[in-house]
Amino acid sequence: MAALKLHDLELSGNCYKVRLFCALLSLELDVVPVDLMGGAHKKSPFIDLNAFGEIPVLEDGGLKLRDSQAILVYLARKYGGEDWLPTDAGSMAQIVTWLMVAENEIARGPGDARLHDKFGFKLDVDRARANAARILGLIESHLKTQDWLALDRPTIADLACMPYIALGHEGGVTLAPYPSIQAWIGRIKALPGFVSMPAL
Amino acid sequence: MAALKLHDLELSGNCYKVRLFCALLSLELDVVPVDLMGGAHKKSPFIDLNAFGEIPVLEDGGLKLRDSQAILVYLARKYGGEDWLPTDAGSMAQIVTWLMVAENEIARGPGDARLHDKFGFKLDVDRARANAARILGLIESHLKTQDWLALDRPTIADLACMPYIALGHEGGVTLAPYPSIQAWIGRIKALPGFVSMPAL
Repeated sequence: MAALKLHDLELSGNCYKVRLFCALLSLELDVVPVDLMGGAHKKSPFIDLNAFGEIPVLEDGGLKLRDSQAILVYLARKYGGEDWLPTDAGSMAQIVTWLMVAENEIARGPGDARLHDKFGFKLDVDRARANAARILGLIESHLKTQDWLALDRPTIADLACMPYIALGHEGGVTLAPYPSIQAWIGRIKALPGFVSMPAL
Repeated sequence: MAALKLHDLELSGNCYKVRLFCALLSLELDVVPVDLMGGAHKKSPFIDLNAFGEIPVLEDGGLKLRDSQAILVYLARKYGGEDWLPTDAGSMAQIVTWLMVAENEIARGPGDARLHDKFGFKLDVDRARANAARILGLIESHLKTQDWLALDRPTIADLACMPYIALGHEGGVTLAPYPSIQAWIGRIKALPGFVSMPAL
């Protein structure tokens, strides 16, 4: 099998999700750095691969796929059997609710706060911090009574949500008030094959 | 089979997605209006059903499910066979990329512009309109060469993305520059069993 190819930025939590899941699945991955500082994501050849001009992009043979959450779904279905994204309606839907939290509330919360503080994005950082407090409070309550976000075992829901929560301190969002979230991050870090990223 | 129960707001595009998909699947649906103006979504009993305090929520027997995109996934897997969300990795992932566009770019574009203009939400409407122009341009290009967003037939990708695009005029986002998007909306409206909502 030819290796998967990931168009990547090391400091991107969205790219890291993909690197982490490939490591957990023991999949060989060719990592191709994209020069975002130089604007490579907004011009050819990258823009021909992903019209949205965003990383990550995964290539698997002829398949080209954008969006980190969708890439997790692809890898889970293709290489993960029923372990990380089961196909029964209820389990799959519960996992998807958390993929949406990663795409929406977490991105607009700790994700945006980090974009502002670490990368200088012009955005409403007060709103981002308020969003972060809301979603982290909800997740803390949720994790008080269960070990993993969606099912009774780790799934792609956990992998999708963890990175930007664990990187929140780079946007001034501390996890000190959230012991259940800290313990959950610890459980993910203890998974066989776990790999880290800078500042995690 | 007991009917599905939807906790609903008639003017919500996210609730409408669920009503539309149930109609297309010929599923019986009990619609329970939630008094958002009166704040019913932020207190018991609704908040016990969905800690996020948001509509829609679907109940199916003992299952309680939040998030419109996740509800589409559930209904597709439980009642739609392989038609609306096939289980092969590539097809499912392509559909999920568009569920994420619905949750992110469309919500933060035409969705936010409508929240501002129609419902008085305090948000950066100039940014919402700029987001709308970007994502509508990308979707217009995409639909120049294909009839449906993800596959060669309608899927939940189309149902997830259509409502807030078609309601954009309520937020000052006209579809005049996007003939391919207009034709796509027309194809959705022509599906057997289609139902509409106010202003669509």
